[in-house]
Amino acid sequence: MTGFAGETRLRVRYAETDRMGFAYYGVYAAWLEVGRVEYLRARGMVYRDVEDSGRLLAVRRLEVDYLAPARYDDQIIVRTRVTAIGKSRVDFESEILREADEKLLARGRVRLACLDRKGRPQRLGKELSRVCAPDC
Amino acid sequence: MTGFAGETRLRVRYAETDRMGFAYYGVYAAWLEVGRVEYLRARGMVYRDVEDSGRLLAVRRLEVDYLAPARYDDQIIVRTRVTAIGKSRVDFESEILREADEKLLARGRVRLACLDRKGRPQRLGKELSRVCAPDC
Amino acid sequence: MTGFAGETRLRVRYAETDRMGFAYYGVYAAWLEVGRVEYLRARGMVYRDVEDSGRLLAVRRLEVDYLAPARYDDQIIVRTRVTAIGKSRVDFESEILREADEKLLARGRVRLACLDRKGRPQRLGKELSRVCAPDC
Amino acid sequence: MTGFAGETRLRVRYAETDRMGFAYYGVYAAWLEVGRVEYLRARGMVYRDVEDSGRLLAVRRLEVDYLAPARYDDQIIVRTRVTAIGKSRVDFESEILREADEKLLARGRVRLACLDRKGRPQRLGKELSRVCAPDC
Repeated sequence: MTGFAGETRLRVRYAETDRMGFAYYGVYAAWLEVGRVEYLRARGMVYRDVEDSGRLLAVRRLEVDYLAPARYDDQIIVRTRVTAIGKSRVDFESEILREADEKLLARGRVRLACLDRKGRPQRLGKELSRVCAPDC
Repeated sequence: MTGFAGETRLRVRYAETDRMGFAYYGVYAAWLEVGRVEYLRARGMVYRDVEDSGRLLAVRRLEVDYLAPARYDDQIIVRTRVTAIGKSRVDFESEILREADEKLLARGRVRLACLDRKGRPQRLGKELSRVCAPDC
Repeated sequence: MTGFAGETRLRVRYAETDRMGFAYYGVYAAWLEVGRVEYLRARGMVYRDVEDSGRLLAVRRLEVDYLAPARYDDQIIVRTRVTAIGKSRVDFESEILREADEKLLARGRVRLACLDRKGRPQRLGKELSRVCAPDC
Repeated sequence: MTGFAGETRLRVRYAETDRMGFAYYGVYAAWLEVGRVEYLRARGMVYRDVEDSGRLLAVRRLEVDYLAPARYDDQIIVRTRVTAIGKSRVDFESEILREADEKLLARGRVRLACLDRKGRPQRLGKELSRVCAPDC
């Protein structure tokens, strides 16, 4: 798994399952979010502080490919990396795996735009640009 | 059903079901919220405006009794009323029914505290007190 | 808005907002689901019955483009259509608009695969194929 | 904190916050669920296996007292214990604390009923009764 610098573990909650017995497809967005936040934390950046300083990273685009279902109580690994960066934009990519056998369950891509509190685009700034330098 | 002045309808979403095939127990909190907001709207008050004017109604206590399961795609009725009011507090009570046979599925009670933006208690004020005058 | 045969209305819940004050990006998946289910219902098909008869429509791929934020209490329109159909696959596309000014807030695409109860692909069957004949 | 035998840690997700900037009140139900499941796991019982063997623990009653808000990215501790047990019923109690200063944020109580797959009450059985012997 070259190039995936961040790794987070979580367990599928009952709240996250649906009638089919698997994790609901919308829940993956929250897992991808956890992956991104922990990716930043592992590089010394707390996303809460980024927001408090007036830089909001808003999701512009989400893509998820669902390859195999995540079941209730499965231990999950979220591997996250940055694939591209622009002046006021970052592209993240994540892989979601089942820990037991490292089976790839889903692949997700998220494009974030950097906004100020009024919702206007702003530059990522030095620190975010450094932390989000593409991994691959 | 005396004294239930507000009535809202909603349909159980797939996203709201869990592995047991029923609506997850935590989802009822959101339904109770919808019930309260529509209760206010029916009396001419938009809760969003209340917040924008600096009065936050924060939940202090939640109680739900689950009597029968809500199933996926069931049409649900939420009946809401105010049972008590204080200087900076309102108590709501709701009944959640299945529309098809008006079977009572759950009963919920929520206590709200009126706060300012810094989280300090403040009085409900004239308008909220009038709108939330107990129904029973 | 040519070719959008299904239309559903919903209101942004407090539960669906996040710290930024807008609807959380993961919530759109549930809205797209509501759009698809109501699309089918408008054509005389209840998705719950489809599942009960042993045909599960599992999400294989999700794409969402977020164009403008949905705010708390906004009334939202979800317009849904089928863009393609295969032997055991349907592609849905939805537009999410703010009712007040019909501003386009997001565009979503979902690919569904038809599975049996054991998770094996199966054909959509006559009725689903008829109901999901592409609108455009 | 006498008598709290189970302890779980989790971090408040962005997905779990609401427009007020705090964790949404309905989210606590999921945290209480995680607390109960980890309580059982710490005693050698995997709730998924309990369900697979035909015993469902359905929530009959939920009570939450919200004492102080949980903020985005806060590390949270959920402490869980059993307070009472019946032939086909278990009562759990949890405390939710902020890890940084061990401040008590909420207290939750959940009553579970043991059901078979058809929703009929059944006895907890020997193993569940042993594992859920009240802690206090």
